[in-house]
Amino acid sequence: MAQAAVGLQVHVTALVESATSSTAQVVPDSVVGVASDADALRGLAENADVLTFEHEHVSNEVLRDLRAAGHAVEPGPDALIAAQDKIVMRRRLGELGVPCPRWREAAEVADVLAFGDETGWPIIAKTPRGGYDGKGVRVLSREDAERWDLDWSWPVLLEEKVPFTRELAVLVARRPSGEIRSWPVLQTIQRDGVCAEVLSPAPGLSPTAARQAEGVGRLVAEGLGVTGVLAVEMFEVDGDLVVNELAMRPHNSGHVTIDGHTTSQFEQHLRAVLDLPLGATDQREPFAVMANLLGSGLADPTSAYPRLLAELPHVKVHLYGKEVRPGRKLGHVTVVGTDLDALRRDAARAIAILDGDPR
Amino acid sequence: MAQAAVGLQVHVTALVESATSSTAQVVPDSVVGVASDADALRGLAENADVLTFEHEHVSNEVLRDLRAAGHAVEPGPDALIAAQDKIVMRRRLGELGVPCPRWREAAEVADVLAFGDETGWPIIAKTPRGGYDGKGVRVLSREDAERWDLDWSWPVLLEEKVPFTRELAVLVARRPSGEIRSWPVLQTIQRDGVCAEVLSPAPGLSPTAARQAEGVGRLVAEGLGVTGVLAVEMFEVDGDLVVNELAMRPHNSGHVTIDGHTTSQFEQHLRAVLDLPLGATDQREPFAVMANLLGSGLADPTSAYPRLLAELPHVKVHLYGKEVRPGRKLGHVTVVGTDLDALRRDAARAIAILDGDPR
Repeated sequence: MAQAAVGLQVHVTALVESATSSTAQVVPDSVVGVASDADALRGLAENADVLTFEHEHVSNEVLRDLRAAGHAVEPGPDALIAAQDKIVMRRRLGELGVPCPRWREAAEVADVLAFGDETGWPIIAKTPRGGYDGKGVRVLSREDAERWDLDWSWPVLLEEKVPFTRELAVLVARRPSGEIRSWPVLQTIQRDGVCAEVLSPAPGLSPTAARQAEGVGRLVAEGLGVTGVLAVEMFEVDGDLVVNELAMRPHNSGHVTIDGHTTSQFEQHLRAVLDLPLGATDQREPFAVMANLLGSGLADPTSAYPRLLAELPHVKVHLYGKEVRPGRKLGHVTVVGTDLDALRRDAARAIAILDGDPR
Repeated sequence: MAQAAVGLQVHVTALVESATSSTAQVVPDSVVGVASDADALRGLAENADVLTFEHEHVSNEVLRDLRAAGHAVEPGPDALIAAQDKIVMRRRLGELGVPCPRWREAAEVADVLAFGDETGWPIIAKTPRGGYDGKGVRVLSREDAERWDLDWSWPVLLEEKVPFTRELAVLVARRPSGEIRSWPVLQTIQRDGVCAEVLSPAPGLSPTAARQAEGVGRLVAEGLGVTGVLAVEMFEVDGDLVVNELAMRPHNSGHVTIDGHTTSQFEQHLRAVLDLPLGATDQREPFAVMANLLGSGLADPTSAYPRLLAELPHVKVHLYGKEVRPGRKLGHVTVVGTDLDALRRDAARAIAILDGDPR
């Protein structure tokens, strides 16, 4: 978002966890503090035209207070709650008529057993709040449910395990005055519950299915009154779509738009929260592939640049300035062109080199 | 360059004229100082892997001292001098066999008269050092030369006035280990001696002329031992090319590469000065057009965003955070696609809106 802000001459100030954090490395005037600190958020809001987020772990109550005090907070707390609490999300999506897996709010183990016996085992259990990247999500057999050794507090969200053929994501941006634009529908490929690869557009998706997915994105954005970027993660099941998760912020799947599309999700998010007209979302080349660097065998992945850049001069590299930890999202690469298989090979090869592959 | 550095996880520190300057707005850890301050440059160099520039107005002697003290300075002072002193430039290009206008170093008015009588009036006079954007350049008639009311110090560079049909620029990047890559040859359109518009690639340029121009770029980069981005401005005369000016840094004409090409001149400059392999320079769409915002009728050009972004959702906007002054380069816009005339119209329209055109 800092990169996009430079182009538009938008001044960004950020609340950062430490003075050496990823964000602080690239945003002048970063303020060190935690997202739960109401005074820190108020300080940011008082000096800004608008306060926005790059994750959902922000107190909804504090945001309500800031809005009540006249500060612009986008997306607003009424919308954001549906991305913060998965039970609220399911309830709201149900009210909007958006296709979802069968789900239930469980208050105790008996509810879990009843839901699984009804829908068939295994089932999916989710903590309503605080989960991300597969954390706070479990696949449960009847035995797991009977034993119930999760240290989660109740209530718990239960969902049927959808026999999906693949996962899609639709990204849309909406601004307060109502304009909505969506990017081409993406295919996301997860490994161990974490996004590993994104294909844009989702290959082989019928125009009808693409329109349906975009329609769901627009319906959710309008129905919830979202401002900024909204990512709707979906399962494709026999040509039908059901919604898996929501995010109200620039989303990992949308990193592909930085190099792949006329307007990136970050530029679009800035335009949207400032209530400026949205940019064109068309794709620069027939296909764009993004792959995540999840941990690295190298202490410093930039040490792989001589090999990486020599071997793959057309790959765009994005590293986040984070300390290496196993499985951590340290960066991503994007490659655009016409031959999807070749692009996927190049993206995978780039990630292998950044991971320290000796070949 | 700050935007490109974010993606590559390259840490940039900059010497800035003031704490609120354009660069300081986007580069954390900027140091306030002037480019003529040897201690300030030494301080930067001591904490960096490499010291580089975004203008040539830096003491060559100080750079020599820094190199002697073991600091990496790229481009090096031996190359940079040819972009700092136009008489040195002409001499070096002549030694390399690069086609140039006829030229002479004049030590007094008699030399000026003799050169003009030989080559034909009017002639071009240039201050060897410190000129930019048409400053330090004059077209002289014989009467102007006889009267000689320029307050320039001698020597002065004299050049024949070339009857060019248009101006081209070739951008190349070279890294110390020798790799060179060039972008497609650009056409530049000047108004009042200042670059107003850039077309990429130069329309209607024959493959032979394009190869010739790229060959000149490579010859100059290798012959002068340039590191980083080199811009070679040329005149096209009856299908032949003669070199007008050199710049050894990311150049205004190359701003078109940010949105128009796989690797921008800024990313390439960072790669080159760090001696990393260079990126692909192919064009994303058949044509890219860049237009400069030179001054503005608006006190704050961002106030034009609601109209600009609504009317032209596919135009990419870059404003530099500079205070508005008449004729000042405040930003640029880029638009890419297949219909060159339509792109030029859109770019011109975007600039008119940023300039406050009431229509």
